[in-house]
Amino acid sequence: MNPKRCAACKYLRRRCPKDCIFAPYFPPNDPEKFAYIHRIYGAGNVSKMLQQLPVQTRAEAVESLCFEAKCRVEDPVYGCVGIISLLQTEIQKTEILLAKTQAEIVVAQIKHSQNQNSEFM
Amino acid sequence: MNPKRCAACKYLRRRCPKDCIFAPYFPPNDPEKFAYIHRIYGAGNVSKMLQQLPVQTRAEAVESLCFEAKCRVEDPVYGCVGIISLLQTEIQKTEILLAKTQAEIVVAQIKHSQNQNSEFM
Repeated sequence: MNPKRCAACKYLRRRCPKDCIFAPYFPPNDPEKFAYIHRIYGAGNVSKMLQQLPVQTRAEAVESLCFEAKCRVEDPVYGCVGIISLLQTEIQKTEILLAKTQAEIVVAQIKHSQNQNSEFM
Repeated sequence: MNPKRCAACKYLRRRCPKDCIFAPYFPPNDPEKFAYIHRIYGAGNVSKMLQQLPVQTRAEAVESLCFEAKCRVEDPVYGCVGIISLLQTEIQKTEILLAKTQAEIVVAQIKHSQNQNSEFM
């Protein structure tokens, strides 16, 4: 047993090679991160995806893949698409509230100018 | 060759069984839908995910998985998490605009009441 194996190699019960593609992103102290990824995408698919990316973008890719995988485990029907729907609903609500508030301003301005006109009559 | 094979079995070059788990969701006239899913998750993982879901939720699960897979193919670093970030930024902007607009109302109301007070002085 090599105590320095990354979380991915530990999970896959294999030797962690020096050039392990997972090691920089899956430290041994966070085993759940790889478990989510493995359950949803499979280690082979993630390794393939990372290999196709420039090294400097891989950390961000791993974070977003982990986020999506965790969402899918927690909500197997909608995954993080459920979050997108919720946010779109929130935007619509806020936009409606904004439109109402802007309309209130227009009404207040009309009332204000009517009051001013009546003062000069 | 069976011309009635679903898009998944066609893609996997296999016979489409009567109880094919993919057939109801991957019609033969839309081969791209399965191609995205296969590229990101692999057929085995998707089959496993669908098997674990009640039948009446599988169509929605397939749609959200396809959406996520398409996003990941188009944006290999951020996938649909990129959309979540964009929507969160949009919500923040709309909320700021809403707060400003609400503040404008308060200012207009204060001015209005000051005008009315000066009328009676």
